Amino acid sequence: MTTYSTAARRVIDRCLELAQFTEEPGHITRTFLSSPMHQVHALLTQWMEAAGCSVRIDAVGNLIGCYPGSEGAWRRLLIGSHLDTVPHAGAFDGILGVLIGLALVECLGGKPLGAAIEIIGFSEEEGVRFGTPFIGSRALAGTVDCDLLQQISGAIRDYGLDPLRVPEAVLHGDVIGYLEFHIEQGPVLEILNLPLGIVDAIAGQSRYVVEFQGKANHAGTTPMHLRRDAIAAAAEWILTVEEEARNTPGVMATVGKLDVAPAASNIIAGTARATLDVRHAADAVRRSAVERILAAAGQIVSRRFLTYSAEQILEQPAVEMDSCLKSLLDRAVSAIGCPVHRMISGAGHDAMILAQRCPAAMVFLRSPGGVSHHPGENVLEDDVAAALAAGGNFLENYVYG
Amino acid sequence: MTTYSTAARRVIDRCLELAQFTEEPGHITRTFLSSPMHQVHALLTQWMEAAGCSVRIDAVGNLIGCYPGSEGAWRRLLIGSHLDTVPHAGAFDGILGVLIGLALVECLGGKPLGAAIEIIGFSEEEGVRFGTPFIGSRALAGTVDCDLLQQISGAIRDYGLDPLRVPEAVLHGDVIGYLEFHIEQGPVLEILNLPLGIVDAIAGQSRYVVEFQGKANHAGTTPMHLRRDAIAAAAEWILTVEEEARNTPGVMATVGKLDVAPAASNIIAGTARATLDVRHAADAVRRSAVERILAAAGQIVSRRFLTYSAEQILEQPAVEMDSCLKSLLDRAVSAIGCPVHRMISGAGHDAMILAQRCPAAMVFLRSPGGVSHHPGENVLEDDVAAALAAGGNFLENYVYG
Repeated sequence: MTTYSTAARRVIDRCLELAQFTEEPGHITRTFLSSPMHQVHALLTQWMEAAGCSVRIDAVGNLIGCYPGSEGAWRRLLIGSHLDTVPHAGAFDGILGVLIGLALVECLGGKPLGAAIEIIGFSEEEGVRFGTPFIGSRALAGTVDCDLLQQISGAIRDYGLDPLRVPEAVLHGDVIGYLEFHIEQGPVLEILNLPLGIVDAIAGQSRYVVEFQGKANHAGTTPMHLRRDAIAAAAEWILTVEEEARNTPGVMATVGKLDVAPAASNIIAGTARATLDVRHAADAVRRSAVERILAAAGQIVSRRFLTYSAEQILEQPAVEMDSCLKSLLDRAVSAIGCPVHRMISGAGHDAMILAQRCPAAMVFLRSPGGVSHHPGENVLEDDVAAALAAGGNFLENYVYG
Repeated sequence: MTTYSTAARRVIDRCLELAQFTEEPGHITRTFLSSPMHQVHALLTQWMEAAGCSVRIDAVGNLIGCYPGSEGAWRRLLIGSHLDTVPHAGAFDGILGVLIGLALVECLGGKPLGAAIEIIGFSEEEGVRFGTPFIGSRALAGTVDCDLLQQISGAIRDYGLDPLRVPEAVLHGDVIGYLEFHIEQGPVLEILNLPLGIVDAIAGQSRYVVEFQGKANHAGTTPMHLRRDAIAAAAEWILTVEEEARNTPGVMATVGKLDVAPAASNIIAGTARATLDVRHAADAVRRSAVERILAAAGQIVSRRFLTYSAEQILEQPAVEMDSCLKSLLDRAVSAIGCPVHRMISGAGHDAMILAQRCPAAMVFLRSPGGVSHHPGENVLEDDVAAALAAGGNFLENYVYG
């Protein structure tokens, strides 16, 4: 483990070093093909080349360092994550997975395996600059459509790349799979006191906007029993959303936004517009939870003499991670003396996009305090060492030379 | 009743005629000492003088038409309401009470009573222009303080009046009382199928801002049982507010505004800031309802591991209307064959301010649909006729010549 401990320290130091390349001094903000991305690319290229990789940048700005396999090896294993951040981010979301990939290659010390290893730093995952996430991995999956390409082509050209070559970024050849290490961004591993978790599936998502339409009225002159109060109806529904999620194992349901009108302290609200976000690893479970939640809205408004409307904003099916890769990761984690814990990712990740094109799997590292998308985001050095040990075991035993 | 019917038609026609004097063409918007107020003053002055009144405008812009009493009469009865409106108002809120006062004098046909009658059109009640309501009636009550005077003195000067003479507007002499006719602005009389209601008291009000502080977190990665969701806590509390009001007769409690942060569909809300408005005719009942409502917030946050804070914004005691005037109005309403109905005013009115200085009473006229502060605001001609008949009976019998 000594090698992995040293390597883990270096991974963390490098994350912190790359965090200084930002669009906003004093904060970590690095969006798709923004100017500081040049510096990230330059430093990563230097480190990758020193580890024996040949490095290229594809037309959508993904950085790919290829560590060659043994003579005659024709397959590739991809290891990576994304290089972009949300505004005012932490230092680990995304980039940690790229540096773990690099460290795994460095730990091989030049020894070739039975497959090439490509370390990928995706140019875009967070969806900040153009409102569309996963641009980097979509280029590999071949799902950057014309509209999106047109939208981002200026940014690609400004960065010094050729948007017309984006189609060439599509993944070809014999790919063993895609492996992504990522901070959990949630509290589960910390509560279980585990360094690592193996992602079983990435939850599907339904998003709706649900609007309750009542009648705005004077707060002082309208008796309680004659009110058609949109805030009160929304409040009752928000509690049923919470209850539905609590009563259905694995369902996450959230009302994160509520806009009220006319929004005066002395006027009963006439409308209340709520967002709804429902997630689950099984699409059928998610869909039936959504059905019950919307039915509850119908019951509430009919009892209260209001009306409601529900508009679907997003319907994204769950993505299961590759079962073969998951089993191999189970064994690698177990081999380093770590309990095996399978878990669901409630958030979307590049692995979800790559899964359309090749076997994909993810390993989560514990997030102290469950914090992410925040300067306080962190990762423990021992957990990074465990990830490297498990990753090293995986490479040694299943991508052997 | 024929006289009163004709007079009622004229009252409504005059309300509609004065509604054309507005700051915004196509809407009825007439704030404190705005330019269209000159036209309202001019036309009212003409009508009042034709009815035998001597008319003056005091330094805060109140229009007062004095119909003299019989020889030697030294007392005055005030009848009035306000001339200003909210933005995009209806044609009856306020001004109806002034025109009913004028019609009552006109119906006397020049016959003097045992007291002078002063018809008052207050310059300001709604609080739109300076954020402070009741400026007109406060000048009569002597509660325009230096701060307020300084704030409004420019507007007074621009209107052609002298702000230094505002103190002279204070009510002096032997005033029998102040009588205000006003649309109910609520649905109660309509539901009871009654034209008129006699106001027992103007409800006291408590206003608070209650903030729930939880923890913003990822909607996809934070398990339900680990959330500290400020929207869900606020929702639970909003239902207890509603329940408290429903379970305590006469209490009106409203959460009209809810501001959530960070307000994103995929982020659990960290804070939710709600307004609370509680009203009741008995201060003790209102205060104990507020106590229970705030205690409920405490219980909810402690069960959910959140915190909360409550800031008092307004604490306005209830104002009882004068019991002698109320009895006289009961008898007058009864005398015209109308059922006597006492009711609480949930909204504030000039009568509440005048009550600090003289006996004050109010008569509500049914509001079709309970609508007010809206272009759809209306009043029925028959109800205005009933108000005039009751008012006429009151004057004939209790302010006799």
